[in-house]
Amino acid sequence: MIDLRSDTLTKPTEAMRTAMARAEVGDDVYGEDPTVTLLEERVAGLFGHEAAMFTPTGSMANVLAVRSLVAPGQEVLCEASAHIARAELGAHGAYSGVTMRTWIHPRGQVDLTTIRTILAPDMGPFFVQTAAIAVENTHNFAGGAVLPIEDLRDLREYATGVGVAVHMDGARIWNAHVATGTPLAEYGAVADVLAVCLSKGLGAPVGSLMVGSADAIAESRIWRKRMGGGMRQAGILAAAGLHALDHHVERLADDHAHARLIAEACGVDPAGVDTNIVVVQRSDAAAYVVAAREQGVIVSLVGPTAVRLVTHLDITRADAEKAATVLGGL
Amino acid sequence: MIDLRSDTLTKPTEAMRTAMARAEVGDDVYGEDPTVTLLEERVAGLFGHEAAMFTPTGSMANVLAVRSLVAPGQEVLCEASAHIARAELGAHGAYSGVTMRTWIHPRGQVDLTTIRTILAPDMGPFFVQTAAIAVENTHNFAGGAVLPIEDLRDLREYATGVGVAVHMDGARIWNAHVATGTPLAEYGAVADVLAVCLSKGLGAPVGSLMVGSADAIAESRIWRKRMGGGMRQAGILAAAGLHALDHHVERLADDHAHARLIAEACGVDPAGVDTNIVVVQRSDAAAYVVAAREQGVIVSLVGPTAVRLVTHLDITRADAEKAATVLGGL
Amino acid sequence: MIDLRSDTLTKPTEAMRTAMARAEVGDDVYGEDPTVTLLEERVAGLFGHEAAMFTPTGSMANVLAVRSLVAPGQEVLCEASAHIARAELGAHGAYSGVTMRTWIHPRGQVDLTTIRTILAPDMGPFFVQTAAIAVENTHNFAGGAVLPIEDLRDLREYATGVGVAVHMDGARIWNAHVATGTPLAEYGAVADVLAVCLSKGLGAPVGSLMVGSADAIAESRIWRKRMGGGMRQAGILAAAGLHALDHHVERLADDHAHARLIAEACGVDPAGVDTNIVVVQRSDAAAYVVAAREQGVIVSLVGPTAVRLVTHLDITRADAEKAATVLGGL
Amino acid sequence: MIDLRSDTLTKPTEAMRTAMARAEVGDDVYGEDPTVTLLEERVAGLFGHEAAMFTPTGSMANVLAVRSLVAPGQEVLCEASAHIARAELGAHGAYSGVTMRTWIHPRGQVDLTTIRTILAPDMGPFFVQTAAIAVENTHNFAGGAVLPIEDLRDLREYATGVGVAVHMDGARIWNAHVATGTPLAEYGAVADVLAVCLSKGLGAPVGSLMVGSADAIAESRIWRKRMGGGMRQAGILAAAGLHALDHHVERLADDHAHARLIAEACGVDPAGVDTNIVVVQRSDAAAYVVAAREQGVIVSLVGPTAVRLVTHLDITRADAEKAATVLGGL
Repeated sequence: MIDLRSDTLTKPTEAMRTAMARAEVGDDVYGEDPTVTLLEERVAGLFGHEAAMFTPTGSMANVLAVRSLVAPGQEVLCEASAHIARAELGAHGAYSGVTMRTWIHPRGQVDLTTIRTILAPDMGPFFVQTAAIAVENTHNFAGGAVLPIEDLRDLREYATGVGVAVHMDGARIWNAHVATGTPLAEYGAVADVLAVCLSKGLGAPVGSLMVGSADAIAESRIWRKRMGGGMRQAGILAAAGLHALDHHVERLADDHAHARLIAEACGVDPAGVDTNIVVVQRSDAAAYVVAAREQGVIVSLVGPTAVRLVTHLDITRADAEKAATVLGGL
Repeated sequence: MIDLRSDTLTKPTEAMRTAMARAEVGDDVYGEDPTVTLLEERVAGLFGHEAAMFTPTGSMANVLAVRSLVAPGQEVLCEASAHIARAELGAHGAYSGVTMRTWIHPRGQVDLTTIRTILAPDMGPFFVQTAAIAVENTHNFAGGAVLPIEDLRDLREYATGVGVAVHMDGARIWNAHVATGTPLAEYGAVADVLAVCLSKGLGAPVGSLMVGSADAIAESRIWRKRMGGGMRQAGILAAAGLHALDHHVERLADDHAHARLIAEACGVDPAGVDTNIVVVQRSDAAAYVVAAREQGVIVSLVGPTAVRLVTHLDITRADAEKAATVLGGL
Repeated sequence: MIDLRSDTLTKPTEAMRTAMARAEVGDDVYGEDPTVTLLEERVAGLFGHEAAMFTPTGSMANVLAVRSLVAPGQEVLCEASAHIARAELGAHGAYSGVTMRTWIHPRGQVDLTTIRTILAPDMGPFFVQTAAIAVENTHNFAGGAVLPIEDLRDLREYATGVGVAVHMDGARIWNAHVATGTPLAEYGAVADVLAVCLSKGLGAPVGSLMVGSADAIAESRIWRKRMGGGMRQAGILAAAGLHALDHHVERLADDHAHARLIAEACGVDPAGVDTNIVVVQRSDAAAYVVAAREQGVIVSLVGPTAVRLVTHLDITRADAEKAATVLGGL
Repeated sequence: MIDLRSDTLTKPTEAMRTAMARAEVGDDVYGEDPTVTLLEERVAGLFGHEAAMFTPTGSMANVLAVRSLVAPGQEVLCEASAHIARAELGAHGAYSGVTMRTWIHPRGQVDLTTIRTILAPDMGPFFVQTAAIAVENTHNFAGGAVLPIEDLRDLREYATGVGVAVHMDGARIWNAHVATGTPLAEYGAVADVLAVCLSKGLGAPVGSLMVGSADAIAESRIWRKRMGGGMRQAGILAAAGLHALDHHVERLADDHAHARLIAEACGVDPAGVDTNIVVVQRSDAAAYVVAAREQGVIVSLVGPTAVRLVTHLDITRADAEKAATVLGGL
């Protein structure tokens, strides 16, 4: 089966397994795991931030990152189909007491005009305060759409001017980086904190990082422990992340090419396929998913008329070509 | 001074004070305050619901009402400038663990097309669930705009069809009722729970009610106690509410007429003044507020170019005429 | 019926009703209710603190007071049958994210030896921090027991030495004051914040206050609003409190005498009846409660073998004598 | 250095690393990781429960297990130095809204007499409800003390009789099992839910499990995702757990022997050393810790006069003998 449900499905390569098996480890709750520390320092450096912190999941990285900016009773603004709004089970409200308002954009983009409209004006202490604006790059439910760096810079400038912080959910920031050539540090420069993931396109089995200032990370280590994310010899997992950074970033271009190839076969405008996600609109979406599976290709139903497919590390060129043939024939 | 900052400013009339002073009371935590019970039964009846519960504030009524529909980690949808989103200090997230997504409408209206777009589709247990949609009628920050009953019926039908509940923040539902002639029970019929307020247009000093099913209210009494809202001899306050229902509902038409009178004097299109709130757009908004005060009229700055004024029980026809003259002359 | 269930049952006197009816009021959310302000300043002064804040209930005053000292994830220590632990429905955990550990004392007393044992030592950032110790004076479930001022001073000295704050739940601090002659300011001096209640022994229908520093109160006003406790023309209620402070404090000595009178008739050692609460141990407690009611005296079952009765403003000398006769005869 | 700070310090053995490197994996958020499933089924079976769920940490397993029994605003009773009270940063209050009351026992034991005293009697809906009692076996801060199965059975019988559930924090239940010979299923039989840990005595790098009914586990999977604990190819970690169950359980007897050996050398009564933890009382505790380190033995200061040492997988017989010599000589 060619499984295109998600890039979270990737399995560690043999080389990655070897790196994990050989990882030097220690008790990371005590700050003594050298491999975790190496990964954290490397990722912080990539984004030009002071520090980073390893977490078991991207959801926890997002929750801790937003929490570092937004106090209970304050709000974060985000696009209505953002992962933090849609796919984290309301954790920001349930666990951090954070409230949320949303703007709506079919491609998940920054809409500064609308943001200016809804950002809470300073009406005194009895009104909600907008503490942060969150963006997602690439934007998962908008089909892997890239947020242009120019828009992010404009947002950052505006936000700074009104005293509001910026969080970037960079679960797939690597895809944005490869698709656009924008250096990771430039993305880092437009956000106070970021969450980046190793277990999606990069192919590590487990792990994400929160990236930010030294103070924010130091405080977040306590909250990570409180949240049950303080793992012990996590260097085993961090070694996979380091391996992925060495070997699996540039190759994301292949995933993007595979996505465009399949998109074209399916009649999807490739101009809307920025990275490794393709959304196919079909009036017969449910039947389409079933038919694809019968021919060996697994895709996801994500709406009454929407089918999603995601290319990733475990999809070869041949897989992509076969998927293009199968899906294009339906 | 003619104080047009808010209809929360109203002071109890002599007749209302007398009603309070004579109120029969008991310990309402034990369910033994006859005046509170009378008020609760009367308000439930007005809206055609089984039960109602007295609360110290409209904010608490909203928080408890939404909580009765939305579990921690689930979400409520509302318009982006709704009172529950803007003016309750994020209490729904901070205290109920509820998350929120918003649609945006300049007049605070139901936008069913957009709601259909953002309502969380059933994508399995790991995605946020939309448990309720909240509407506000009249809509405070949209300038006291009425939500047409037809729109509310359409929303209710849609929501029921997709298994989602409806909450109505009816802090100023009395104004909507008087402005449109729509019976209160028709508003009650389009919502699972409502919050209605006695201390705004109706002129009671303190008190709101949550309205809903007997089960929802019984459970909410426990949460009201947990939230610190279980008052003892609250019949003193409920008596003011009963008096207000007898004497201060129909006269809201005067407030509406006063608002239109002032609006016209200020060059505001009266078609946009549905009830007792007028929003004046002025490039010199801050100076305008100062100048008005110097001439004895207090209005609020609610945005860089927005001034708000609210008519109410303590504003006579003469006050309104004077305010119209003053504000129209600025 | 002679109703001895609780001192929360008291109904406002005619004089108190008159005071309420005549109260000068304003919108207290805007800080403009002169009667509320007068009450707040007076109560702050009585306890020698900078500021006070009116709340709808004692539970809300306790929740906001503890919250001002203890951050989410930190802990407060208290006696195991304290009102904040037993009778506030877990609000401190549910709404403030505060955790609790308890010592156990049959008379609800400060047990400094045990407190020293359980207070969280500084074991680094990954261990819970004890941020406050809470005491209750008089202690409701310990039968209205007074906490001696010497013990409170020792506690305060110890707590200050280890950097831990003290909260006093003084719902019935007036009873302690009258029973012992200890000035209210001396109680105020041993706590960072207090919650004091007007609607128990003092006979006001509704209302409590949080007492503390100006900073703590200013911040707590925001949290009171968030919690749905920001009432509008609350001066109506505050007037009852002011009246109670003028007329109902010293007379608590009568309640205490009545309690001792009944205790003696019931064979309860009056040495254990510090104030206005009597706990009668009876193997036939449930039947005893029924039999008392049949003879016109209402008392509470508070445990398998425990019956509680509370004297208050609405119990006259004659009522107390009759209750003594009835209960003594069972 | 001989590092006796904690049994969390253990590093995976070569054999364990090989097992991890060879693990068959899948996306566990989709329930498709066969190694995780195998581990979950095996652990559930060991304790005679229907199901189990893998978590990144013991803290998360405890938080999710307690949450499955105790609703926001309800309470859990535990011993005052329990890990859930002392070492999880108040997560049960901060994240689950759970409140706590505690009994105090110097050896962390079940004290049924006291529990009967403090368990909240049914006083109606406005009083906190005791929903669960939590025990910790072995008890970390009580020096690895075993809770006798007879006491646990008595507790379970009592709890069931009053409608209260039992949670067992079995982070070191393996040590209790080996020290006493009590089958794991007998421990499982006295609790509704358990949390058990693989990364302490058992030597796995990362991972714990919540054990309970199929319904509790199914619901907890959603809460694990919300809490950021839904890892992807976690089979890498689960493989270490399976290896540990095969190879590292019975050998805990060695750790226990090593602990007794060191205890005797230090003049600690071995009757108080049930398992792998030794607490040495020294008036010069801080200096003692420094002196030990200078001679190559690392122990922890856990109180002004208390030093703790823990034996584990990475401490050989020779290490233990050397530690005994060093520590015995101080």
